[in-house]
Amino acid sequence: MIYFDNAASTYPKPGSVSKSVGNWLKNNGANPGRSGHKPAMAAGGVVFDTRVLICKLIGMNDPENIAFVPNATYGLNFLIQGILKSGDHAVTTDLEHNSVLRPLKLLEKKGVNFDAVCVDLYDDNKTVENILKSIKKNTKLVICTQCSNVCGKVMPIRKISAALPDGVKLLVDGAQGAGIIPTDMKADGVDYYCAPSHKGLMGPQGSGFIAINNDLFEPLIVGGTGSESFDLDQPDYLPDMLESGTLATPAIVGMYEGIKFVLGLGVENIFQHKVSLVKYAVNALNGLDGVITYVDPELSCFASTTCFNVSNQDSDQVGEYLAENDICVRSGIHCAPLFHKKMGTEKTGMVRISFGCYNTEYEIDQFIKILKKYLKK
Amino acid sequence: MIYFDNAASTYPKPGSVSKSVGNWLKNNGANPGRSGHKPAMAAGGVVFDTRVLICKLIGMNDPENIAFVPNATYGLNFLIQGILKSGDHAVTTDLEHNSVLRPLKLLEKKGVNFDAVCVDLYDDNKTVENILKSIKKNTKLVICTQCSNVCGKVMPIRKISAALPDGVKLLVDGAQGAGIIPTDMKADGVDYYCAPSHKGLMGPQGSGFIAINNDLFEPLIVGGTGSESFDLDQPDYLPDMLESGTLATPAIVGMYEGIKFVLGLGVENIFQHKVSLVKYAVNALNGLDGVITYVDPELSCFASTTCFNVSNQDSDQVGEYLAENDICVRSGIHCAPLFHKKMGTEKTGMVRISFGCYNTEYEIDQFIKILKKYLKK
Repeated sequence: MIYFDNAASTYPKPGSVSKSVGNWLKNNGANPGRSGHKPAMAAGGVVFDTRVLICKLIGMNDPENIAFVPNATYGLNFLIQGILKSGDHAVTTDLEHNSVLRPLKLLEKKGVNFDAVCVDLYDDNKTVENILKSIKKNTKLVICTQCSNVCGKVMPIRKISAALPDGVKLLVDGAQGAGIIPTDMKADGVDYYCAPSHKGLMGPQGSGFIAINNDLFEPLIVGGTGSESFDLDQPDYLPDMLESGTLATPAIVGMYEGIKFVLGLGVENIFQHKVSLVKYAVNALNGLDGVITYVDPELSCFASTTCFNVSNQDSDQVGEYLAENDICVRSGIHCAPLFHKKMGTEKTGMVRISFGCYNTEYEIDQFIKILKKYLKK
Repeated sequence: MIYFDNAASTYPKPGSVSKSVGNWLKNNGANPGRSGHKPAMAAGGVVFDTRVLICKLIGMNDPENIAFVPNATYGLNFLIQGILKSGDHAVTTDLEHNSVLRPLKLLEKKGVNFDAVCVDLYDDNKTVENILKSIKKNTKLVICTQCSNVCGKVMPIRKISAALPDGVKLLVDGAQGAGIIPTDMKADGVDYYCAPSHKGLMGPQGSGFIAINNDLFEPLIVGGTGSESFDLDQPDYLPDMLESGTLATPAIVGMYEGIKFVLGLGVENIFQHKVSLVKYAVNALNGLDGVITYVDPELSCFASTTCFNVSNQDSDQVGEYLAENDICVRSGIHCAPLFHKKMGTEKTGMVRISFGCYNTEYEIDQFIKILKKYLKK
């Protein structure tokens, strides 16, 4: 099997991830932050250590400013619905995932407006210009993916943050960037960041985090936090404010091992590997008659993920053939409707191939061989 | 070690739970409901099978009416904040957890009112009467725990649902009931139910479910669902409406094994075991000078969990001594502020001992021996 669906979830995970989660479940079921006995304290310890490791990964100082959330979509909802209030305006881009677009659309009913501006895949200055042109007096938030989940475009986060007027905050969706693109929230000028555990961080599905480098906001989910229990209002401090109910400790245990693995390899090394795999794949795809690719393989601003079509065939047809031949890709619409409109692939969708740390050029060669068979049919 | 903190999280889990989660993470990292390749289809399969098993556990027919949520607190927020709108009234009880009370308090700002009525621990008819007395013309929802997380009181759900006027819906918080108290949503007249995976269902922390036996409501969290991807509005059908972002498949895999274990033992048998452990523990505690208990040990309406204090000492002091002696309990305030007011334990808190399937009377004897040493100090 060749697994090129790492943008959905990375596979395989490092051996330490499955091992640590299995052992944790076998040896410790306790709930962190609720009781004072040894297993509960051990659970609290591993949760805290993971906050510290996340800080190291993304250039934050205070582990208290890291809150665990169930996945990146929840994190984005907490941030978007928490920060934007009636009368506010937001700017986002046409590369965004529905995890950004749907919360914004929901907020329209509550008096929030937004614009999704055109990203120039090749000229970052134009993208920044487009964002700035959309800024209004009441613009509170710019929301931008760190890396497109379809074409792998790496967004010019530092240029965007440098250009934003005072008072406009920057929220970066790190779903496809965390553990893949070197990130330093302070140096990058990012106010809010969130990411899941199970993609570039190589952990299990079922957790993720928000990192906060600016003001707090109203929590969307409230409940038991094990703190201030006589107060019917949610605690107004981090991380309790954003962590209601029992944390997903087993997933956090696995995330810890995943991040340790990522830091061991070095995010810059992972990034270079994933840029070079995209270049190699797009060049190989461009050598095939009837295959359409969508990005310039000579550029280094595309990482991890790329997409293609076979003439104007339904991408699902190609995806199915590849699946039958044990090549795991994703086809169809990738929860990024504006990107498909931008590229004119509303009807066909796209075949997405997305790479993990473990993928190799050899696997791309094998994949190309099988795609060639499909093209000959 | 004696583990009496099962109301926080059950421990140990059945061996099949840790084994299946570890193996899943080793052998399959794919994302269900997104791609068509074999690992993704396998993930979709285990998720579907778990919905079917949950139906079997709680007397539901349609697996589509089961939605996975990160934990019970999220489920309660989805339901409470989704169902109640400005102008609505809700009735709840003084046994509830902050996962019910805090969302209700939050909704007060949005024009929702609620009353928390007194539960009579010994006369269920009086409790039903108290609930009915609080019903107003605009009462939309009654929210009731299935079992108190502090004193283990099993609530008369069927009596309550039978008494409610037409149009008033019943939401049951199954956090301490699922897998512990025999449940048949249809026969019990329950409209909405939710529960976590990691307590009575014996699964890992990091998942739970909502079961819906009545109308839908507005989702609180929206985003990518892998369905209707060109529509910026969230799908309005189950389970997609409530399942945004990547599901916690490893936790669901473990939940599947946990529920299988529970169904194998039989919920009625588990219930009888947990009622008898409470009776045994309270009787033993009542034999100790200076120990205060809070429920009548002759009655069968208390299951799983009970609480005590040593005269009017801070419960944390007792909890610490027990922890030092490898007995895991929870002390302090148990996220149920109205219950502590009801029992006059705002200052001391309570020592809670909560039992799992594996606990025995022998362990209670050992615990009593150590408590006796504490009392002699």
